[in-house]
Amino acid sequence: MSDIDRGRAQQLMREAEIDALVLFQPEAFRYAVGAPAGVATMWGKAGSAIALVPADAGAGLAAVVSDHAAPIIRRAAPDIDLRCHRIWIDLVDLSGVETIAQVDDAYRRNNSGGARPETFDRTACFGLLSDLLRERGLSAARIGADLEFMPAADFLALRQALPEVNWVDGSTVLKRLRAVKSQREINLLRQASAAAEAGLVEMAAAVRPGAALGQLSTAWKSGAQAYAAKSGFSLSGHWDYISVGAALSDMTAAVAPGALIKADVGTLVDGYSSDGARTFSCGPVSPLAGDIFKALEAAFARGLDALRPGNTFGAVHAAMLASMRKDGFGEYYRGHFGHSVGGSVGIEEWPFFSHDNPEVILPGMVVALEAPFYGEGVGALMIEDQFLVTASGAECMNSLPRTLRDLSAD
Amino acid sequence: MSDIDRGRAQQLMREAEIDALVLFQPEAFRYAVGAPAGVATMWGKAGSAIALVPADAGAGLAAVVSDHAAPIIRRAAPDIDLRCHRIWIDLVDLSGVETIAQVDDAYRRNNSGGARPETFDRTACFGLLSDLLRERGLSAARIGADLEFMPAADFLALRQALPEVNWVDGSTVLKRLRAVKSQREINLLRQASAAAEAGLVEMAAAVRPGAALGQLSTAWKSGAQAYAAKSGFSLSGHWDYISVGAALSDMTAAVAPGALIKADVGTLVDGYSSDGARTFSCGPVSPLAGDIFKALEAAFARGLDALRPGNTFGAVHAAMLASMRKDGFGEYYRGHFGHSVGGSVGIEEWPFFSHDNPEVILPGMVVALEAPFYGEGVGALMIEDQFLVTASGAECMNSLPRTLRDLSAD
Repeated sequence: MSDIDRGRAQQLMREAEIDALVLFQPEAFRYAVGAPAGVATMWGKAGSAIALVPADAGAGLAAVVSDHAAPIIRRAAPDIDLRCHRIWIDLVDLSGVETIAQVDDAYRRNNSGGARPETFDRTACFGLLSDLLRERGLSAARIGADLEFMPAADFLALRQALPEVNWVDGSTVLKRLRAVKSQREINLLRQASAAAEAGLVEMAAAVRPGAALGQLSTAWKSGAQAYAAKSGFSLSGHWDYISVGAALSDMTAAVAPGALIKADVGTLVDGYSSDGARTFSCGPVSPLAGDIFKALEAAFARGLDALRPGNTFGAVHAAMLASMRKDGFGEYYRGHFGHSVGGSVGIEEWPFFSHDNPEVILPGMVVALEAPFYGEGVGALMIEDQFLVTASGAECMNSLPRTLRDLSAD
Repeated sequence: MSDIDRGRAQQLMREAEIDALVLFQPEAFRYAVGAPAGVATMWGKAGSAIALVPADAGAGLAAVVSDHAAPIIRRAAPDIDLRCHRIWIDLVDLSGVETIAQVDDAYRRNNSGGARPETFDRTACFGLLSDLLRERGLSAARIGADLEFMPAADFLALRQALPEVNWVDGSTVLKRLRAVKSQREINLLRQASAAAEAGLVEMAAAVRPGAALGQLSTAWKSGAQAYAAKSGFSLSGHWDYISVGAALSDMTAAVAPGALIKADVGTLVDGYSSDGARTFSCGPVSPLAGDIFKALEAAFARGLDALRPGNTFGAVHAAMLASMRKDGFGEYYRGHFGHSVGGSVGIEEWPFFSHDNPEVILPGMVVALEAPFYGEGVGALMIEDQFLVTASGAECMNSLPRTLRDLSAD
């Protein structure tokens, strides 16, 4: 099922004065169509899967897909107008066939035999898109493509193939659309966040003097995977940035008394990535580390106060930076104190809690708020939680306390 | 260390009449520079990491990198001329610092305090590239960029920022360069292939009536990971396309007597992916499946005969297709019967064993040769091995027999 709110899409496209979005990025295709774009997108090139989202919310969605991906897409999204092109993979329905002599007839019955392109035929794909646009009266329309993804070489070919279209960059419309989540997306991000947090619990239990960073990473992963399995879902991916001790980039570090342990981690469920972080120690930390963490706690609290619908992303950044300044950090700076999360490319999604960012916080957004400090010679310290923006504020998706927890005291 | 053969790069750039390659794709950066491009590439946008490869083999490599990635890149590639831009991540060297009051001075000593961009500053990155090109006398040169990756939005900004450069698509030069592997790359692909094959052995041992596809996938992964751990390397990724039984897309299938089990699998070592496949059965298969497999074996053997330096990629395709035709398959077709393997995006790399492909097979290439058959109602059958092209032929990186092995007979 498509995750697009067609009413909001119509409004955003009207504001941007575009008549349709045409989406080439596999993640954007998946978002628009509700089914995977297929194996022919593996090279990061554009064309083998294309989603057409008309601005008119009453006009149906359409897509160009490969003959290999079509059956799955048709099942997942029966209402979408599909146009098929052939890719390199040969497949034939051999129901009822018993001998080699009958195989050719089976190919002919399926119309699946004969020549196929090396990978996929971009010209054929653009031709099918041209058909769709013509049928929808969009042949000379102003159309937003996802030009923050589409490779320049493919865009050049697209403009040559469909010269009458007025192509503009639809990336901001797409990003603004994706920033407010569907219920399905919220559920996935909630699952991912819960799995990552379960991993942190298992990681914390593995912290003891001598424990290596790699062992903590393994413990985290195992806890996250076990939680997912127990809860009846599976992880489509995971990532962890764990640091142990004072040397930030020492991947062979082991836990020593007084060491800081920072774990910035996420799991993916169906391509949607969580993002969260906690800081632990093994024994009492230095007064400086303790003071820095107190400043981060205060900054996080100020950011959370500002995290409410109607406020801007920039206001959150300003509140957190002001808190750090008040606590004596005159040079500390972050380009952003967090970001949206979701199923696009990259762990961090637009918009960001960044300086003067005028983008407005809206109900239904899922965001990660983060207060990090990277001090070479001291260690990394970080608080990060994931929130669903509600009608009146923000609902935290995490439950572990945000304190700097001394695990040797457990 | 860079994996580029600078002499061959010079020759390919001279043939393409370009004065330099400027590479934006993270995988291409890694290839050229010999160190990871850094976290600011996570969004798939161009600019935060840029590699400059002059055509002149005597001129040194240069790169634009983030201040966050620079220390690691400097250690890995001390000879490369690096230019740094700031990203959103704040980091400070706190050596000798004991109180908050001393922290600001530490920032100033490091020149790491003060404002930072939301993520990275594309304009600043292109400015650093402009400096590099000017210093090398390349400000108005003909330069190949990797336009099969570079997003159209970024390419537009690049042309505006550096309008005197004659930008052309350098993708084919890059792909041709990458198709011949360095010794380091060959070693990684050999490790990846061995791990994947060890996984197949463990998977085969798990085949019994009732075994679910998911269990076979888990067994494969576990065997591959155990092999890597035992051999002292780790996997940076893995993928598997396993099918069980007659219904090709039934991911919940379980092994029944007579079922075909096809496993097309690969592991990644340091980003380099292997590719290989075997077919098993659980008990005797139908005469049709047996006959199809015999045809695939013959086609594979004909392809392997043609897989030698000096021959074209197209000749291998022709030999394999002719073998299938001779064995009675008049409509069967594959867009390609295999491809290069390596550390680019996607499992399959250019060039492909495709119809009429004039690209010449060269010593030092690592390729996967594949003979697949997807018969809905019968099952999937496939033979695929990975080869290093040598001075006189091809050395197989796999050791499992290519037969259709009946595991119930073990």
